[in-house]
Parts: sequence; structure tokens; C-alpha cells
Amino acid sequence: VFASSELSLPREAAAHAIEEVVALARWAGARGWVPATSGNVSVRIGEGFAALTATGADKAALTPDDVLVVPLHATRATEPRLSAEAPLHLSLYRAQPDVGAVVHVHPTAAAWLSRRRAREGALGFQGWEIGKGLRGITTHEARVMLPVVPNDQDTERLALAVASRLATVPPPCFGYLVAGHGLTAWGRNAAEARRHVETYVELLALALEDERAGVEP
Amino acid sequence: VFASSELSLPREAAAHAIEEVVALARWAGARGWVPATSGNVSVRIGEGFAALTATGADKAALTPDDVLVVPLHATRATEPRLSAEAPLHLSLYRAQPDVGAVVHVHPTAAAWLSRRRAREGALGFQGWEIGKGLRGITTHEARVMLPVVPNDQDTERLALAVASRLATVPPPCFGYLVAGHGLTAWGRNAAEARRHVETYVELLALALEDERAGVEP
Amino acid sequence: VFASSELSLPREAAAHAIEEVVALARWAGARGWVPATSGNVSVRIGEGFAALTATGADKAALTPDDVLVVPLHATRATEPRLSAEAPLHLSLYRAQPDVGAVVHVHPTAAAWLSRRRAREGALGFQGWEIGKGLRGITTHEARVMLPVVPNDQDTERLALAVASRLATVPPPCFGYLVAGHGLTAWGRNAAEARRHVETYVELLALALEDERAGVEP
Amino acid sequence: VFASSELSLPREAAAHAIEEVVALARWAGARGWVPATSGNVSVRIGEGFAALTATGADKAALTPDDVLVVPLHATRATEPRLSAEAPLHLSLYRAQPDVGAVVHVHPTAAAWLSRRRAREGALGFQGWEIGKGLRGITTHEARVMLPVVPNDQDTERLALAVASRLATVPPPCFGYLVAGHGLTAWGRNAAEARRHVETYVELLALALEDERAGVEP
Repeated sequence: VFASSELSLPREAAAHAIEEVVALARWAGARGWVPATSGNVSVRIGEGFAALTATGADKAALTPDDVLVVPLHATRATEPRLSAEAPLHLSLYRAQPDVGAVVHVHPTAAAWLSRRRAREGALGFQGWEIGKGLRGITTHEARVMLPVVPNDQDTERLALAVASRLATVPPPCFGYLVAGHGLTAWGRNAAEARRHVETYVELLALALEDERAGVEP
Repeated sequence: VFASSELSLPREAAAHAIEEVVALARWAGARGWVPATSGNVSVRIGEGFAALTATGADKAALTPDDVLVVPLHATRATEPRLSAEAPLHLSLYRAQPDVGAVVHVHPTAAAWLSRRRAREGALGFQGWEIGKGLRGITTHEARVMLPVVPNDQDTERLALAVASRLATVPPPCFGYLVAGHGLTAWGRNAAEARRHVETYVELLALALEDERAGVEP
Repeated sequence: VFASSELSLPREAAAHAIEEVVALARWAGARGWVPATSGNVSVRIGEGFAALTATGADKAALTPDDVLVVPLHATRATEPRLSAEAPLHLSLYRAQPDVGAVVHVHPTAAAWLSRRRAREGALGFQGWEIGKGLRGITTHEARVMLPVVPNDQDTERLALAVASRLATVPPPCFGYLVAGHGLTAWGRNAAEARRHVETYVELLALALEDERAGVEP
Repeated sequence: VFASSELSLPREAAAHAIEEVVALARWAGARGWVPATSGNVSVRIGEGFAALTATGADKAALTPDDVLVVPLHATRATEPRLSAEAPLHLSLYRAQPDVGAVVHVHPTAAAWLSRRRAREGALGFQGWEIGKGLRGITTHEARVMLPVVPNDQDTERLALAVASRLATVPPPCFGYLVAGHGLTAWGRNAAEARRHVETYVELLALALEDERAGVEP
């Protein structure tokens, strides 16, 4: 295995990834899922690079200038415009070769329910057709687990906590919640990441109605 | 009666139906009723054909390339891009000659209430002016029944269950819920199907407020 | 006083009124307040005429062809495309010379709360700054009354019931609810009618939160 | 220090501020936070002036003609088109030299919760990642205080009450609620004011879910 610094950037794939990051950010922005410049989006470029939204950008009006192309081992020390949450994206690309795009968003239901259910360590969904939006789920009878990890401002440490929590979740699992914070989800490519985010967000909307009605989780 | 395979496709009507499918899909997509590439839309073409959204398409950004024109007896064996839910559309066209357009959507209230009330087998609505959005309903005093059937991943079998359930519902009835899944509704043409969907979705919004307030169904 | 049939139509004012009806309908449609072709909008033209949305039009995509120009004494007998709810508009123009525009919409909160509170005969609002959106209200301490009348499919009779109910409401009052149906509001011109509708809709949103929280009305 | 009347208006900065006011107003209008021509927006121009939305303007469709450029000591006596709420903007610019933009909006949750919690004098938020949208907040563990003051139609007196209430709130604090009325928030520039408003609005959305679930504040 070559270190990523020895890989050369595939220019055409990078240009395409930047376009996909812009489209994902605007899609999330139009839905109100990234208030106050929160949230971030990335797309893998080949083996060793990724395109990521820069810190502080307004996602709903993102332009290519707000997208950084970095090696998967980049840190804020080398890339000052990197989002503080970049480790959560980059660690996923390094650990899982089939992750092609990662989306981190803050829908109200994700922030609220993740804190409400933090002690349980996961939200479970079963009996909802929309669960089939996840790759590999072929029936509403399948149980979908969305793990919850406690929030931590040290995002390198948070990334490690996420990785060890994910190792305990039965597949298929393409996302997790950070308590009181938001949802991160991914897919093999931008379209699948988007479909997985929309699936989890809709499952959270249904779980919120259950909460309001006092239905036992 | 000729078998549909012996009918020839009316080209002009097909082109018009494709346009209508695209418009219906974008209308549903703009309202957030087809998250994660869920939902599907179809418009009848003459006696023996229909235009349907292909499986997996993003409805909010649908293009004519995402629309299939198929005989009413088509199956995924002959048309691999056919949605798994195509039997629910095609069986309606075969059974009811005055059905001109069918829409299947996943608004949160439809998925949630259909499961909450699955045991009752139907939602009943009475006293709401908006019920007059259904053809043949001329007063808020009329009782509108929206049947609920259990979900089933075998969509040919689900289509049969729907047909036998519909046979027991007093008219007018232009739709049904699948529990934990969503709403299917239809009309003589695209405009009427859309009006019927909007009517049922609004009735479901009112029923959801009743649920939250603890009003007895 | 001349009978309206003896008045001649002011052409320029009519063209302007048609434009305003189109703009009001699209504004209501964009907010989701006129589902399933429900709702209707009108603007007065001089002393004896009004421009009204025709029956069955899709308000969000209204065009000038969907607008009728009629004398204030028009009925469906003479104008078959007239909305069944036209009497509710025309009676207001005949009774109140300073009414310049009338809007009838179906926001979910208006349909639901009007039925929930039908027996009380009115919703009262006090302590909300947004109440100042109504002409003549200069402080949040003022009490705003929004009367509720029972629904009736005989719209001529309903118009009479509304008129006699309005006579009992202390001013300022620029609207009413029909139980399980929706909101009608008006102003001296299109801009004021729109501001009054937005005020009542926001007051209803606040009352709905009160309902959910169990706050006594 | 020169009196503001002795300062000359920086023309270029004024033109830029007008553009920013228009953009802020349309942003708030598109989100439904300024119903019925409520709300107002301002941007500081140099040391002695500000650009403000004129009274009664429709924020969602604001044009430069709806923006007034006034000295920080302007009153409605000298500027009849000034909003009645202008003192709440101008007093902030006079008191806090680093305030560059002020936004006053009426989201339903802000109006409703501010009245519901009026007696407590403040809403407190802790444990929410989105709190980091406020300048100086670096962890979800920080406590964010949003003070609530009683409503008062005498806006000069209300501005004084706000100033004395703000003096008691531990920093960072970039906003306040007026009970039953709405939210005012600010920043060093238009982008920061917008980010602060979006942060408070999202915190209010989370607090509203807590209210619905009966979570103790």
C-alpha cells in the first residue's frame, strides 16, 4: 500500500467530485438540514483523496470555491480551511474502501431524537417500507439500527468512538447519530449517500410521530 | 376483447402520457412525498398500455428517460427497469377501465397513520369540506373511507389483496393505504389523480391533528 | 343607486384586478393553503363588478383564463364557471363598500381548529404582537375575535349565516372560519387582504401550539 | 466623538448595506419568518448611519426602494417611513460598536415559546451542537441564554428595557425574545447576524420539541 501522499490526484475525477459536493450541499441546504452553516459533505476521489466542504460555508449557496480537495490523511494543521468535522469523513474513507460519499446534516428530528434516546445507544426501526431505501434492505420486516454516540468536541476522538461503535452494529448500517448533534450517513456514491440520508431522515420523522403519540420505541 | 399484445401503441397519446408522468413525479417530489427514490407514478395510454416511472428514479428531477411505456400485462421478467410496485398500477388499469392515472406516494402522515390504524382496516373521514375534492363527494357530511391493507413485499399478492379489499369499500373510493408504507390514489386522468392525492393527504393531515389531540377516530 | 347591470365595466380596472387575482392565487398556492383545487380569490372592480377564480382551477398555476369578471349579482345560473362559493365573495362586496379583495383558503390549522372550537362560536386571540397585522389593531393587548360558523353546502344560506354572525362581532374583524372548512378574510385591497390572511393564519398557528400544550383557550 | 449629524454618509458603504438588507429580508421572507409584513432588518453604515427596511414592506419581495438610510439618532418624527421598531435597531448600533447587522423576525416557535416562558425571563439551551453557531461558543456543553422581555408598544421604552435586561445576561448573547412577539438577533456583519438567527431559531425548534414531550426546561 502506498501512503496517500505518494498518490497523484486524478484531475478529472476531482473536478467531478467537486460538482457532486456542490450538488449535495445545495440539496441539503434547500431542505433546511444545515442551519447556521452547520453540516458538511464530501465525495471520495480515487484511492487517496476526497473533496470536502470548507468550514463555515453556507451550504444552500455553495460554490466550487467552498470545496477543498485533500488527501485522506489531511488535518487542520496542513489545511486550515478544513472543517473541524473532517476527521469524521476522512476516517470513514480510510476504513471502508466502498464508501464513496459522506453527508453530515442537522435535521431537527435527528438532533432531538438522538439526545432523547442517547442512553439506549441506538434507534431501531422496523415495519416501515421506507427502510428499503437502504442498500441491502429488501423488506419492511427487517430491523434497521441507527447507532447513537455521545457528542465530543475532540473530533479525532469522536471518530474513534464512532468506528468502535459501528463495529458492533449488525449490517446493513450506513449512518449514525451523535447525541444532540445530527446525522452522518454515506453510500458508495453521491446518489446512494443522498438516498440513505433521505431514508434515515424519513425514519426519524416517523419515530418522532411515535414519540409524540407515546408509542414505545 | 383483444389481448394487449395485439394492440398497437398510440404514439401521440404515449408522448403526452410521458409528459404527464414527468409533471406528476415533479409535483410529488417538490412536496417531499417521495423520499429516497420511493413512490411511483403512471398514466394510462389507450386500452392496453401505460407510462410508468422506472425503478430507482429521483422523482423530483424526473426526465422522460426515466419513464417506461409498457403493455398492461408487462412484468419485471420482460421489463427489468419496471418498478417492483408496477403490479399495483397495472392491475388497477386492467380492472377499472376508467382509471387514467395512478400515483403512489409516501407522505409521513400516510406511512405513520396507516400503521397506527392498521387493525381497524380503514380510516374514516367525515365533516371535512376538503373531502369534496373526491369525485362524487358533494357534502362535508358524506363519509369518506380510505382502506388500509397490510404491507407485503410480494407485490403481485399485494395487488390481489388490494383488489379484494377495494371490493368491500362503499364508493366513492379512489385510493388506499398500505400499512407503514404509503398512499396510492387514482383518477380518470392525471389532473383528477393529483386532486384525489391532495385530498387524501389533507384528510390525513387533519386526522394526524386529531391523533395528537386524542380525538377518537 | 343604479343596479349593477346598469353599470358599465371599467376595462382598465378589470385588467388590473385579473392580475391581482392571479398573484393572490399563486401566493396562496405556493403556501399549500389551497389543496385539491380548493379555495378561491376575488378582487373588486369599481362599484358593481368583481374578478373571481373560476371553479376547479389549480390556484398555484393560475392563469388569467381561470379568472371570471362578473357583476356583483352574478349567480351560477348566469355564469356556469362561477365557483359554488362565489356567494360568499359577492355578498361581502355588496354589503361592505370598503371590501376590495376577498381570499378563501384551507390551511390545515384553519380547518382543524374551526371544527375543534365550533361550539364556542369564535376563536379569541390576545397577547400576540402579530395581531397588529389587522388594520386598526395597535397593541398586542387588543382582543381579536375570529368567528366560526357551521358549514353548509347551500352557500347562499351560508352567506346569510355569515352576514348575521359578522353583525355580532366587535370590530375590527376582517375574516371568519367555517367549521371543518377554512378561513375567509378580506381587506380594502389585495395587499391588505393578503396581510389579513397571513395574520389570521399565524394566529391560528399559535392557537394550534396552545392546543397541543393544553393551554386553555 | 462627533454627533452623527456631523458625520457624512459613506456612499459606497451605503449602497452595499442596502443590498445586504434586501438579501437578509428575502432570506427571512423565504423561510416564512416575517408574516403579514412583520419583522425588520438593518445593516450598519460606518459609525453614524444604518440601512433599515421601511415600515409595512413585504420582506419576501423587498426592493431597494423599501430600504431607508438614516442617521443612528433618527426618529419617526424626522423619518415618517421608519418602522415603529426602529428604536430597537438603532439603540443597539449606538450602544454596541461591534454590532453590524440586526434582524427581527417572527417564527411561530419564537412567538409561542417566548410567551410560554415569559415568567422565567429567559430560555436556556445546553447540550445542543447547533449552539456553536454563536460566535464564541465552542462546545455543546456551554449554556446559551436567550433573555425574554415583556412586550411593550412604546418601542423607545422597550429598547431601554432590552438594554437593561441584556446587561444582566452572561456573554455570549446576540439576541433576545419579546414575549408573544418574536426574536431579535445581531452580528458583526450580515452573514454573522444571519448565522445567529438560524442558530437561535433551531434552538427554539428543539425547545419546542422538548415542550411537546414534557421535558423540563
